[in-house]
Formats: sequence, C-alpha cells, structure tokens
Amino acid sequence: MLAPSLNDRIIARGKKLFIAIQDEKPSLFDSSTWVGKVLEWAMKDEHFKSQLFRFVDVFPVLKSSERLTSHIREYFGDGEQLPPVLTAGLKTAGMLGSFGGALLGKALSANIHGMARQFVIGETTEEAVRTIEHLRGAGFASAVDLLGEATLSHQETQHYIDVYLELLSALQAASHNWRPFLGEVSAHHLDWGHAPQINVAVKPSALYCVADPRDFEGSVAAIVKNLETIVAAVRKVNGFLCIDMESTRMKNITLEVYRRVKLAHPDYPYLGVALQSYLRDTDRDLAELLEWSQLQEIAIAIRLVKGAYWDYEMIKAGQNSWLPPVWLLKAETDAAFERQARLILENHEQCHFACASHNIRSIAAVLEFAEELAVPASRFEFQVLYGMAEPVRKVLQRETGRIRLYSPYGKMVPGMGYLVRRLLENTSNESFLRRSFAENDELEQLLEDPVITAERYRNLQTSDSGATSGLFKNEPTADFTKIELRKQFPQRLNDIRAKIPVTAPLFINGRDVMTDARFASVNPALPEEILGTVHRADRTHAADAVASALTAFPSWRDQPASKRGAILQKAASYARRHLVELAAWQVLEIGKQWDQAYADVSEAIDFLEFYSQEAIRLAKPQLLSNAPGELNFLNFEPRGIAAVIAPWNFPLAISCGMTAAALVTGNCVVYKPSSLTPLTGRQLVEIYTAAGVPPGVFNYLPGSGDDIGDYLSAHPDINLIAFTGSAEVGLAICEKAARRHPEQKGIKRVICEMGGKNAAIIDEDADLDEAIPHLLQSAFGFQGQKCSACSRVIILESIYQEFTNRFVAAAAALRIGPAEDPGCFLGPVADQAQQQKILDYIQIGKKEGTVLYESTKPESGYYVPIVILGDIKPEHRVAQEEIFGPVLSVMRAKDFGAALAIANASKYALTGAVFSRSPANLERAAREFRVGNLYLNRGCTGALVERQPFGGFGLSGGGTKAGGKEYLLQFLNPRVVTHNTVRRGFAPTE
Amino acid sequence: MLAPSLNDRIIARGKKLFIAIQDEKPSLFDSSTWVGKVLEWAMKDEHFKSQLFRFVDVFPVLKSSERLTSHIREYFGDGEQLPPVLTAGLKTAGMLGSFGGALLGKALSANIHGMARQFVIGETTEEAVRTIEHLRGAGFASAVDLLGEATLSHQETQHYIDVYLELLSALQAASHNWRPFLGEVSAHHLDWGHAPQINVAVKPSALYCVADPRDFEGSVAAIVKNLETIVAAVRKVNGFLCIDMESTRMKNITLEVYRRVKLAHPDYPYLGVALQSYLRDTDRDLAELLEWSQLQEIAIAIRLVKGAYWDYEMIKAGQNSWLPPVWLLKAETDAAFERQARLILENHEQCHFACASHNIRSIAAVLEFAEELAVPASRFEFQVLYGMAEPVRKVLQRETGRIRLYSPYGKMVPGMGYLVRRLLENTSNESFLRRSFAENDELEQLLEDPVITAERYRNLQTSDSGATSGLFKNEPTADFTKIELRKQFPQRLNDIRAKIPVTAPLFINGRDVMTDARFASVNPALPEEILGTVHRADRTHAADAVASALTAFPSWRDQPASKRGAILQKAASYARRHLVELAAWQVLEIGKQWDQAYADVSEAIDFLEFYSQEAIRLAKPQLLSNAPGELNFLNFEPRGIAAVIAPWNFPLAISCGMTAAALVTGNCVVYKPSSLTPLTGRQLVEIYTAAGVPPGVFNYLPGSGDDIGDYLSAHPDINLIAFTGSAEVGLAICEKAARRHPEQKGIKRVICEMGGKNAAIIDEDADLDEAIPHLLQSAFGFQGQKCSACSRVIILESIYQEFTNRFVAAAAALRIGPAEDPGCFLGPVADQAQQQKILDYIQIGKKEGTVLYESTKPESGYYVPIVILGDIKPEHRVAQEEIFGPVLSVMRAKDFGAALAIANASKYALTGAVFSRSPANLERAAREFRVGNLYLNRGCTGALVERQPFGGFGLSGGGTKAGGKEYLLQFLNPRVVTHNTVRRGFAPTE
Repeated sequence: MLAPSLNDRIIARGKKLFIAIQDEKPSLFDSSTWVGKVLEWAMKDEHFKSQLFRFVDVFPVLKSSERLTSHIREYFGDGEQLPPVLTAGLKTAGMLGSFGGALLGKALSANIHGMARQFVIGETTEEAVRTIEHLRGAGFASAVDLLGEATLSHQETQHYIDVYLELLSALQAASHNWRPFLGEVSAHHLDWGHAPQINVAVKPSALYCVADPRDFEGSVAAIVKNLETIVAAVRKVNGFLCIDMESTRMKNITLEVYRRVKLAHPDYPYLGVALQSYLRDTDRDLAELLEWSQLQEIAIAIRLVKGAYWDYEMIKAGQNSWLPPVWLLKAETDAAFERQARLILENHEQCHFACASHNIRSIAAVLEFAEELAVPASRFEFQVLYGMAEPVRKVLQRETGRIRLYSPYGKMVPGMGYLVRRLLENTSNESFLRRSFAENDELEQLLEDPVITAERYRNLQTSDSGATSGLFKNEPTADFTKIELRKQFPQRLNDIRAKIPVTAPLFINGRDVMTDARFASVNPALPEEILGTVHRADRTHAADAVASALTAFPSWRDQPASKRGAILQKAASYARRHLVELAAWQVLEIGKQWDQAYADVSEAIDFLEFYSQEAIRLAKPQLLSNAPGELNFLNFEPRGIAAVIAPWNFPLAISCGMTAAALVTGNCVVYKPSSLTPLTGRQLVEIYTAAGVPPGVFNYLPGSGDDIGDYLSAHPDINLIAFTGSAEVGLAICEKAARRHPEQKGIKRVICEMGGKNAAIIDEDADLDEAIPHLLQSAFGFQGQKCSACSRVIILESIYQEFTNRFVAAAAALRIGPAEDPGCFLGPVADQAQQQKILDYIQIGKKEGTVLYESTKPESGYYVPIVILGDIKPEHRVAQEEIFGPVLSVMRAKDFGAALAIANASKYALTGAVFSRSPANLERAAREFRVGNLYLNRGCTGALVERQPFGGFGLSGGGTKAGGKEYLLQFLNPRVVTHNTVRRGFAPTE
Repeated sequence: MLAPSLNDRIIARGKKLFIAIQDEKPSLFDSSTWVGKVLEWAMKDEHFKSQLFRFVDVFPVLKSSERLTSHIREYFGDGEQLPPVLTAGLKTAGMLGSFGGALLGKALSANIHGMARQFVIGETTEEAVRTIEHLRGAGFASAVDLLGEATLSHQETQHYIDVYLELLSALQAASHNWRPFLGEVSAHHLDWGHAPQINVAVKPSALYCVADPRDFEGSVAAIVKNLETIVAAVRKVNGFLCIDMESTRMKNITLEVYRRVKLAHPDYPYLGVALQSYLRDTDRDLAELLEWSQLQEIAIAIRLVKGAYWDYEMIKAGQNSWLPPVWLLKAETDAAFERQARLILENHEQCHFACASHNIRSIAAVLEFAEELAVPASRFEFQVLYGMAEPVRKVLQRETGRIRLYSPYGKMVPGMGYLVRRLLENTSNESFLRRSFAENDELEQLLEDPVITAERYRNLQTSDSGATSGLFKNEPTADFTKIELRKQFPQRLNDIRAKIPVTAPLFINGRDVMTDARFASVNPALPEEILGTVHRADRTHAADAVASALTAFPSWRDQPASKRGAILQKAASYARRHLVELAAWQVLEIGKQWDQAYADVSEAIDFLEFYSQEAIRLAKPQLLSNAPGELNFLNFEPRGIAAVIAPWNFPLAISCGMTAAALVTGNCVVYKPSSLTPLTGRQLVEIYTAAGVPPGVFNYLPGSGDDIGDYLSAHPDINLIAFTGSAEVGLAICEKAARRHPEQKGIKRVICEMGGKNAAIIDEDADLDEAIPHLLQSAFGFQGQKCSACSRVIILESIYQEFTNRFVAAAAALRIGPAEDPGCFLGPVADQAQQQKILDYIQIGKKEGTVLYESTKPESGYYVPIVILGDIKPEHRVAQEEIFGPVLSVMRAKDFGAALAIANASKYALTGAVFSRSPANLERAAREFRVGNLYLNRGCTGALVERQPFGGFGLSGGGTKAGGKEYLLQFLNPRVVTHNTVRRGFAPTE
C-alpha cells in the first residue's frame, strides 16, 4: 500500500484529470456511431460479443459477396435472428437473400473497415506517414509499429525487415518538414528537445520464424542478427527503436535480445524494450535489467505496459497445466504497474520511462511519483494507443505536453488480430475504459489504490478455491522458458553417456533373468553409438512369464482397487521425480526431441494417474435401476493375464498406458517392448518395482515380435492382448488370438490401436497463420512417426496456391539433425528399415505426383528428408498407405464437401484436422469427417489423456479410446449381482 | 362418506371402546418385556428392524451355537456395535467370543422362542388343543390354523392334510368336555347357540404344490379334490371350515374353489372363505359372491380381513410392472372394509359375517351397522389374532360376548413367516395398533371416517406423481390371474392352426425373395405338424443382402437417433398390440410354455424400448473434461453392416435385442434366424416393416449356419457380428471373423453370447421354501434350454439330504407335455438332435453318478425326461459340459468356500445363484462367485432388460451385457471432436 498522503495526492490528481475530461467519451463508447452501438451490444451479450469478434477475425478473407453473406448468416443467423444493431438502417425480412445479402454485406464491410481504421493508421507506408503528419499537426508524436503478421518463414521475416527499412526511409524523408515539438528543427530530429521524432517498435517473433525457448541461444542469435539490420537503419535516422514484448513464450528471449543489442550499441540511447506489468515475473525482470544496466553502465529505456494477452496467457497456461504467468486480478496488475513505474522513475538517470496506460489512476500515480522524485521531463513520457481513449490523450497532452501515440499500420489481415485485442480490452468487464466511460463507475472506485482493491477481491475469492481438487489434471507440459529445465536435458544426456552401454535383462516373477541371446539398442542419429545390450527372450521365457503372471494373479486380483491405484500413483510420482532422466533416454534411443520426449513421459504419468483414478471409480459397485425388493449392482473384475505388445514411437507413454490399464484393473501383465526401444521399455520395470508392484504381476520380455509376440497371442492363458502398432501386425495378432485352442478358456480380448493416414482440410477461410504452424508440427513433429501424424493435406482450390507457397517456405525453415540438438525440428527416424521404407515411399511419391519441397538431410544416421508432394490424387499409394515419416501428400478439393470425401476415402480412420472459420463447415466436419479424433482448428497430433481420449476405427483400431473413461472397461469383465431382498414378503426400503 | 349421523355414532362408539381399555396395552407394546423393548427399538431404527426381522426369519435353522453366534455377529455386529436391546443383562465387551457368544445366543434364542409363543398356540396338535382349552376357560373361542409351510410336493400336501385330520380328531376328542358359551352341551358342539366349537382354517395353496393361475382349471380341480378330504372330516365333527385367502396369485383360484366346495355341500352352513379388503378387486368379488349365493340359493360365510401381504403385493407388482392389486393408502383399505362389512351385513341372511380386524374404528363401524340393520347376533362374530391386541379382544368380549381368536400352531420354521408378518403389522408406520397403543395418536384421528382420511392423503400425494415419467419401465409380465389373458392363448393357437402351413420367404432390400430350396418348421411336440415352409438363402442371397444393406447404410446412418428411436418405439407398440399372437407361435414352433413365450415377446419389447431410449441418450455429444479455449465432445457413429446370428431358444427376444441394438445405432442388419425358429424370426420382418424401417436396412436370411453364417462371418463388408448361441459356434465365428482378408476394412467386432454351466449354491441356512421353487424354475423351465439355466446344484453337507429329498419330491410333481397345455411345466425340446444329445448326456451322467430322480416322458414328440443326478464330482462331464436340457447335476460341498470353488471350476461363467441367509456368505459370493450374472436368493434365469444386464465371460461370452447401458457402445465407433475455440488469443467462456 502506498503512503496515505501519496495515495491521497494521486487520488486528487486523478480526480482533477477526470474533471478535465468530464462529459467526453472515447469514440468507441459513442453510441451514435456504428462501432459504439455494436460494442454497447457486445458488452450486454457475451454470445454476440464472441460471435462478433470471431466474425471480425475472419472478415478480411471473405473476399466475395457470397462468402461474406454466408458467413454473416452462419455467425449471426438469418432474418429475424440478426441482431438489429448489425442491420441498422436496412430491412430485416429475408435480409440474407441474394439482394439483401449483398447490401448488408456491403454495409457491414464498410463498417468493419471503419472500425479497423479507428485503430490503424494506414494500410501502406505512404498512408501511415500521412496519418503521422496529420497527428503531429494535432500535437501528437507517434511510435510506429508494423502490424505483426505471423512470420512463418525466412522469406516472411525478410519482408518484415524490408518494410521497416522502407518505413524508416519514408519517415526520414518526411521528417525533414516536421516542426519539432518544443524545440528547434535540427539534424537530430528531436521533439521536446530530447525525443527522436522517428520512433518505431518491432516484434522480435517476426524476426525468426522458428524461434523457440527450447532453442534459446539459437533463437536469440538469429533474432539479434536480423534486428541488427533494423537497428542500423534506425541509427541512421537517429530514431528510437522499441522492442515490443509479446507472449511469455518469447519474453526471456526478448530480454536477452535487448541486452545483446544494447551491448552492441552501448552508447546509443534510443533503444528500448517493453515490459508487461501483468506478468508475475516482471518485478524480477525489471530489477535484473536495472542491475544489468548499472553493472554494464549502459543506459536503457523501458516502455511499461499492462499487457494485452491476458486471455491468451490464461488459456495457454490452463491448457498446459502451468501456473498462470499473469496476475489473476486486474488490480494486481495495476498495483504492479505503479510499483514498477516507481522503480523505473527512481532510476530515471539510468532508464528512460515510457508510461503506456490509459488508466487515469496509473497515470496520476506516475505523475505524482515523478513529481515526488523530481524526475526531469526528458526522462519520461506518456504513450497511448492510437484510436483509443481520446479524452485521456487529450488531458495528458494538456497536462504534460508530451504524448506519443502508439500507431500500428499494415494490412487488414494482420490488423484483425490487433483489432480484436483492442475490442477485448475495451469491452472486458474489468476494462478501466469501460468502467470509466461506458459504465461511469464511482471515481472513488476507479481511483482506489489497486493494492487495496486487489486485497478486497482476493478476500472475496478464497471461498471458491479447491473446488476442483481430486479431479484429474494433466501433467504440465515442458516449459522451456524456464532455464532450469533447459539446463537439465544436456546434463541428463551427459549422465547417460557416462554409463552406456547398459545392460537390460528380462524381468520375470520379480527377478532379472539373463539370456545368452542378446541384441543392441543404438542411437539412430549415430548408429555406432551403442546405448545398451538387451537380453532376448525366447518362448521358454515367455512361458515362464505367463506362468508367473498366472501364479501372481489371484492375490493381485483380490487387492482392493484403492491399493492398486495407490501403487500406480506411486509409480507416477517416481516417474515425475525422474522425468527428464527418463525423457533423455528417448532422445538418444529413438530420436525424440526434448519437448516430445518430455511429453511422452508426461503422458505416461497421466495414464498412471488417470487410470488409477478411474479404476477406483469403477470399483465402487454401481446400483442399476432397481425394482422393489431387489438390488442390482454392476461391478467388475479383471480378465486375467494381459499380453502388452508395445510400439517404439511412444516407447514409454503407450507402454505405460497399456500396462497401467491392465495392472490397475487387477490383471497381470507380460510386456513386450519394441525391439527398437527396449531400454526405454525397461524403465517400466524400475518404475513399477519402485512403486511396489509385486513379483510376477509385471513381467518384461524384450524379444522378437514374430517369436514372442506370436507365442503370446496364441497362448490359451492369455486373456487379453493390448497392442499398439501397425495395422499389418495388429490384424495378424487378432487372427492369431481368435484361432481356437483346445485349452481355450474364453474369447481373447484384443485391444488394438493401429495406424493412420490422417488428413487435414484447409478451408477457404482458414487462418493460415494458425494452420501452418499446427500442420508443420502434425506432419513433421518427431519425423512424422506418429500414428496420429498428418500425412495428407486437402486444400480448397481458391487457397491452394497461397497455402502451399507459405507452407513450403515455412517447412524450409525447419532444421534436421540429432534430437539432442534443441535447434533441430526433426531428428533421425527409428532405424534403417524405417529409413529405407520412407525413402522408397518418397520415390513412389515422386512418380505419383510432383515434389513441392524436398529438404536436405544429414548424411550419417538414419535421416530422411522432409518431402512435400503436390498433385496427389486420393487413389495414389502415398495418399492411401501409411508412410510413418515426414512425407506429406497435398491434394486439392473443389469445395468443402469434396474435401471431406477425400479425407474419408481411407481405410484408416484415426485423426483428422480441419482449419476453417465457417461455423457451418466446422459443424459439418464434426458430423461427417469420420475419424476417431477430429480436431477443429488444431493440428491432429498431441491428444491428451482425458481431454482427447485417443483411438480410431477402420484399419486404425477397434474403436477403443485410450485415456478415456471407457478404456478400462476393456480390461474388465462386467458382473451384475442381483440381491433379492425380500424375506417373508418383507423387503427393507433401501 | 358415511351419513354424518352414522359416522358420529361410530365415533362415539369408538370412543367408548377406547375408554373401556384406557391404560391397557397389548403385550407387544409393553416395554417392560424383551419383545416390547425390541419392537420399540425396531420402530425407531429402520435398519435394526429389517435386520431383526431377517434374523428372526433365519433363526429356526441356526441349530448350533456357533452358527447362532456367527449369524448374530453378521446381522447385528460385534461388541459395541450390538444394539443394547439385544444384549440386555449381558456384558457387551467381546460379547461374541466363544463363551459370551454362547451365552448371548442362548438368551436370544429363548427370547425369540418367547416372541413366537406370543403368536402361536403350540408346536404340536397336543399343545394346540391344550391352549385352546385354556383360552376357552378365559371365554375365547378359537379358529385353528396350521402354520403354512410351503408345500412343494404332493407328499408335503398329503402331510398337510394328515395334520388337519389329526387336529380335527383331537379337537373332537377334546370337545366332549367343552362347555359351550351361552348354550347347552349338545352333539352339535355349538357356542352361543349357533357357532361350531370346532373351527379351522386352511390355506388352499398348501393343497396343490404346482397350483398356478395359468393352469386355472387344473389348479382348482386339484385343490378341491384335496380339500374334500378335510371338508369331509370337518363335517364329521360338525365343525366350521374357513378357506383362507393368501396372495392375489391364488385369489381367483380360491374363490372358485370355495364355490365348488359350496356347490358340493350346498346345505352345510359352516363353510366360509376369507376376503381381503386391501384388494381393489374385493368389492367386485364380494358382489359376485353374493350374487352367486343368491342365484344358487346357497348361504355363504365370509371372514373379512384387511389383508396381511401388502408389502409383498406391492413388491410383486413392482417387480412385474403390474398395477398394484392393493389400495395404496391404509385408509382406503379401512374404507373398503367398512363398505364391504356393511354390504355383508345388509345380506346377513344369506351370508354369515366374521369381522376380523383389530381396528377400533372398523369394529365400531361394524357394531353400528349391525345395530342399524338389526343383524341378529348369530349372523356375525368378531375375530382377532391370537397374541395381538389383547385390549381389543377384551373389550369385544365384554361388548359382544362373541369373540374368536385366530390361533395358528405348528413348527418354528413356518412359524417365522407368520411371526414376521405379525411384527410388520404391529410396527408399520400405518399400523392402527402402533398408532393406538405405542404412539397414542389423537382419538379424533384414529376414529376418523377413513374415506375422509384417504381423501386427505390423496391430496397430499398428487404433487409427487409423474416423477418417474420418461424412464424405462419393463413390459409387464403375463398376469394369468386375468381371465382375459388365459383365454387369449388358446384362441391365438387356434388362429394359427387355421392357417398353417404358412410360407416364409427371404426378405432382402425391402422385398420378399422366393427360393427353390426350402425347409419346414415343425412343432417339436408333434413333429408331423408342419407350421411353415421356409425359403432357404444361399450365398448369393447373402451377398445380395449385404449389398442392399451397404446401399441403405449412408441414409440410415444419417438419420437422427431420435428418428431411429421413434421407429423402434413403433416396433415396440406393434409387438405390444400383437403380444399373445406373437407368443403363440413360439408355443408351437419351439415348445415354449405360455408364460415363457409371453416373457420372450415382452423382452423383445423391452429391448426395443430400452435401446431406443439409450441410443437417444448416446446421440447427445458428451462434453468431456475441457481445458480453457478447448471443447472436447465424445460422440458416436454406427460401425456399418451387422450380421446378426440368432439362437432358437429366445427366438424373438434375442433376435430382437441384437437387431434392435444394431438398427437403433444406425447400422444396417443382415439377420439369420435359427433354422429351428425361422417363422418366429420372420416376425421381425413384420414388426420392423410395420414400424417403418426402410428397405435394405433390415434383411431376413433364413439358411444354414455353416453356409450363410460362415459366409457372413468372413465377409469383408460386415463390420460387426452379433451372435448368441453355443460356445462351439461362437468361437468358430470369432476365428472366421478375425481371419485377414485382402479387402479388409477394419477389425470386425464380434459380440458373442455363448453357453453356460450355471451353478446354484445351497448354503446351510438357505430358505428351502424359497430355494426349491426358484431352482425348479431355473433348472427345468423351458426344459432347461436357456444359457442361463441352472445345471449344477452345490449343496452344503449338513443340508444335503433335506434339500435333495424335498427337491426330488418337488420335481416329481412337474408334468411334462405339450407347451400349449398350461398344466405342463415342461414341453418338448427343440428338435431330434437336441433330444438325442440330451439323452446321450443322461447316459453319461448315469455312468458318472447316480440317478436321484428320472421322470417319465411322453412317447411321441421330442421329449426328454427330467433327470437329477447325484454323486457328481466337479470334473465329471455332466458337471463341465453344457447339456441344454432338464438334467441337473447335484454336488456336495464341505463348506461355503468349497462350494464357491466348485461353482467357479468351469470354463463357463454366465450365471449363478446362491441361497443363503448369512450376510457374510452372501457378501463373499458377491465378490468371489465369478459369473456374469449372480443372483442372491433368487434363481439364475429370468434376467430383465436394464435391471439385470445379461452376459458372462470365459466360454460364456465376451463380457458384453445385453440390456445394459453399455451394450450399445459395441455397435458404435466412438469419436472425439476437439474444438479449438481460441481465435486471436480470445476464447468464449462456454
């Protein structure tokens, strides 16, 4: 809390500011305009608001009148359903008929353009410069920012840089004629005697398309290199450059980039960076930056903002099970802003301050701080966004004389993202502007010390907390913005290298079993590197394993589910404690990138936790509908002995999922890992043993599929088989398991997850900025070696060229190399056989279609190139057969229906993705795109336990759903117990 | 409502009666006694009450101190848990240790004996006569009743009759010394000048062990015949005989028996019948009886009671989906009693009236009616139960001089049923005695006109009604007490006979298809009777059927589930309208008894209704756990084309269940009925066509399993197979379905319900009166041709002899003959092959064990005898192999654990039954008796849709559950659709 007297002065100052703008409204809240009306409506109706913002988002790509009309209908309804605010001035009956539709479309189009022009100073450099001059006429300085189209390729980055160079040179040309504010015209082009007239901001993410916190060093270096071109140009015009802050993913990279650039230009004062007060990290970041500046004796400049991605950060954190990086309460952010502003002002000699807020309380606080600390006018300025909060900019101009408008310019498409953020900002319930100008909250409340406000809200909320305790929660995904995690991977990899080759014996009845026959597990990136020597089981060992499982079964079966669940939870804890170590093995044994390996282990933990929770739920007898005098309970018991035959591509996750499901439901397990990942498979022995799984309950049996796999499939004591792998092997297992046997004890249950030939559809109105990164990940992540990987892209005619151009360019930016190198997007494929198979398919594909792109690849190691094939027809082999590599078949479709037909024209039916912003097409796809896991506006890989129960049908599997609520039922036999409760005509009413 | 003045007089009279017994309490409510204390506790604690009554029920068979102690522990807990009321006077710590347990057991034993003696006048005839003389000394006449042990065999009936003859002769001998009440000693032994001193009551159900409303005429004749012996003896002593009324099942039979007996003895005045006012039918029954009496000019006598089986009747009706035959409100019964008493009194010249109620309002009403109608004292008397409501009997004696005690006698075992009914009567919340003497309700309320009371309660209840609407409800079972239904069967059978032989063509793509190859369907009871000529499909037809199903599929799949559900509901309505007609075909085609055939069609209707309800439920996308910015929905789609291969034993129900499940989930069906029941199978064509199933969606394909069945199993366009039948065929289908095929489109789902070798365990404390009829039904119902049929009985040593003696005698009473004869319990088996197979197994069984019983059988027709085999060991073939006939293997077990081990020693695991009154053993069985459907204290056949989802594991099936909530999932492929709802960092909060 602030000292009372200071706070009183701030409030008094705030009131003065408010009084000065009494009766003025920002134009956004002016309900005589279309924008004002629409926003007023949006603030009243959450559904309309979200439809409106979504429509605004898609609007720029609706280039024909028909598409505009159909989207209006899909987003807002037809005729009477259309909100009157959208149809103002037009008749509503049959509105979206051919004539009415065109009219309405035209009107709406004009209005949205107008809305965009509210915030954007122009579409071209020329327009932008013209607006800036106009603003200068009104006494406002500018900071110009090119609207941040996602840069997905090196070419797009180059274009971004080029536009900045063009902008700088245009500004320079124009500035010759500019009269500086408060000062003389000079070669230095300074306003108020100290501020460069030319002031631009850049987005660091635009400067390196594959920037990734995992590859911290690589990302920083690449950005710095590209930024240097712009810095040089800025220096040439003696301009100011601010490095903008985007999402937290880029935050630490951005700070490091800033430090590097400053180090390269220690004496050039006009290089700044933005900090966001809504981040919990910012207090520390700011302190570190000031300390660094002192230590290096380099003056810095900070633009302090509240932060514009709050919803996004919350969503992102929620989806990844991370702690939110942002303050949960708006008031906490406001309080942080004041705290940080004060700290900067206290250090004003060393740090120039740009105060970028529309909040009058924040502004008043800064004014009071500056006054108290006697900060010279040349060391701080105020910034507001172009098009927003006009009364605020007016009063600031009057009060301080120094006001700069943050002025974006650029094309409509990227503009829409910016526009939506601005609209959100103005309409959110917590928006200071909304509260000040639309809702006229009490001044006392608006000007309250945010520390006090936050305290009050926190007290209100405490009773809510813990409501979700006990529910399953996915393990957090790897957060490589954390330096601790980034450091761990190389360390663990070193640890492993220090002890290889290791030895992996069989594990039967709780004991290691050595065999004479052995085989090696190698690093596919470096096949001469032998990671371990693995003992090879034969049929005798398999028979022993089954026998020991049979012996262990009754007592394991009779444990209460809660006991088995607790053991699995212990296993989860063990895996969690050793997460990076377990993952590091996969980096070496199967070529998984850090994040992918981490995700594999996380998924294993999720399976352990989720299945243990589900097993406990299922163990409670379920009362079925009951008639009087009768109680019927449904309960379950294990099927018996499970053979688990696992694949190499998710060597821990899938192995763990299948075995955990079997174990927690009371079955005993004979587990055969893939021969390509026996060392990772052996981790399960350590995990389960550490957790207390009794001897004989879990047996580990590395060996050949033809030998051990076949033997287990046919064994009469095996009651169920859980298999994940290719359709070829899966179908063979089904056949073997169903073959009658003289000692047969029942029907073997085969739980079979097989391959995929997964398609993504790119609709005409798809958001390519989203679609392309998602598809790169789905098609080429882990070298395309996922059953869920995208191997077909079906693109609507009208967008075909644009999509393929951008997509190919983006793919060309992906590096291929060892998975242990965090800068490589792709690693080696699993082994030589896989390599050869993929290379063969590439040859087939080249005959069937044309090569849109083929990358290079390292010479040694089991590498294959990325290949993107064009002109592929649905009947081509590369459009029908599973390749399991980074080979993507691209097809055209004349309309959405045709795209669905192509997508469905596969014997596989595992995953699919649709990128579209047409509600009708999305709904249609949800119904008609017949796959086990369909993703709308998302890539088709990365299903999470519980959230996306995983599995398909057709040749993709038996219609099971790993990680779903029904999955465990397959490992159980259902029993109904009926109690006749009537005795002598009397039954208790139970 | 009564005339106000009359009602006022009744209330005044009632008050007078109450005042006369002021401060007196029935001994049951005397809290200074053990019984009084225990009942007081029971009235406060529902759980204790039900445990107490259950313990009382089992108590007589607890013949050792250990068993008594262990049951006390199981029912009431140990040490501190024991309710103090049970341990009064004994220390509680370690109460049930070996010493304390014996002590407590002894004390409890004595107390329960005392409690029983409260209501029962003796265990032997001698004792009974002595008590009667004692009661006469106190001025009370008696009506003696032998406690109704269930008579399960002709021998037991004979014993019942013999005891009555002995009783009558003992009473005659004693009565020579009796001074009549109010009158002279005479040869006629009359009390009060008009009432026979010797007065007995009989239970008609005891007079024919296989009495059944279905066999109305047979049951009446048999009872009349046996009753005649007693009547003759009664007449010899000039005694009074009342035919008691038991449950509604026997009501119409009893009334008819009474009429027949009266017709045989038109002038003997001392033959009466009891009527129960709680039955809704009684007003009509009474009117008819009076009318009959007038018409026949035969005087009658009626004992009017309220009715003692209310709970039972409610339970029975609830379990059978019948309207309750009883009034729901106690006051409605009281009102009926007054109405009926008045009617009888109005006809007093023609009908003698015994008023049997303890309710002072009812008694007061009868006294006022009699006074108003000037009924002479000789035309009505009052009865109360021995041991109950002593103050009431006292005041009645004082007021009227004529009071008779209904005095049961007999052994403890049957006594307990009577005891529990009396305890219930005294402790129920609505009990007049409880309200009068335990709770001291206001006199105004106790004496209110019950018409008014009922009206008030009905008004209170109306708001509750309809709460369960929309939920699934099983189709009512056949209620053969209804004459309309009894008449329908012969009529429908005649209708069929008028049109046979019929023709059954194939049905493909909505059209009948004729073939050259044909086969006959015959009546197995009369193989020369050809019911129909059936066209035989070959592989070409099967290919056509699959092709037409494929063509019809997309449009059927795309119907909304609600539409398909509505079609199935129409099918259900059609089947409901034609229920008896459909059932009658099964009587002839496969030898199902009326009730079994009716149940088969009812089950078909249940499947249609239940699956349609479930399909609609499943069609609603299910929101899975969702993270912010993401919505995950689970939904389903049909698998495609289903081959349904059906058995003959539930020719409509199972066929309908499997096809309905496939259809309602959007699959198309190729249905192959059993070649033994193709005409019943063809009913599905009519049902589905009438309901509007489109052409090609359902195809009917009679033909040979080897040919058509195999072809369909292997067909690559078949996506799922639903099969019910033998394990042999089932496993072969699984094998064929799993064989890889070049055009394979996925893994065929096989839903397989196969055989059983089901065991029943008879624990030492089993209630044999319950167990034996249940087992007769489970083992021999429909000739044992059910996969759920009981074919093994495992009996604990100590009860082995008693059980087998009674069981064999009971089985010997079952008649074998054509199913169309309602007097036959067993009909023919399915065909000659089945007959031969069963006869072969009988030979095997005779070698393996000994024959405890073998019945005769009709010569012509496919009949087999009932065979009960003793000395069978678990490893014997007749203990391991499914016989599918009325052949029962009986085994001994040394304890309950051994019995479970034997029961589980089977490759089948379908159904099982346990008869035990040990809570611990029941609980253990629920855990350890490993079958799909386990029934505790109930037979193992007769699973109902929704209440007992049906199916087993091992060789019995795939762990599926027909008629359960999860069943439809097998006909569906699950799909998860994930919506990424984030656009530009913004996601609606949905």
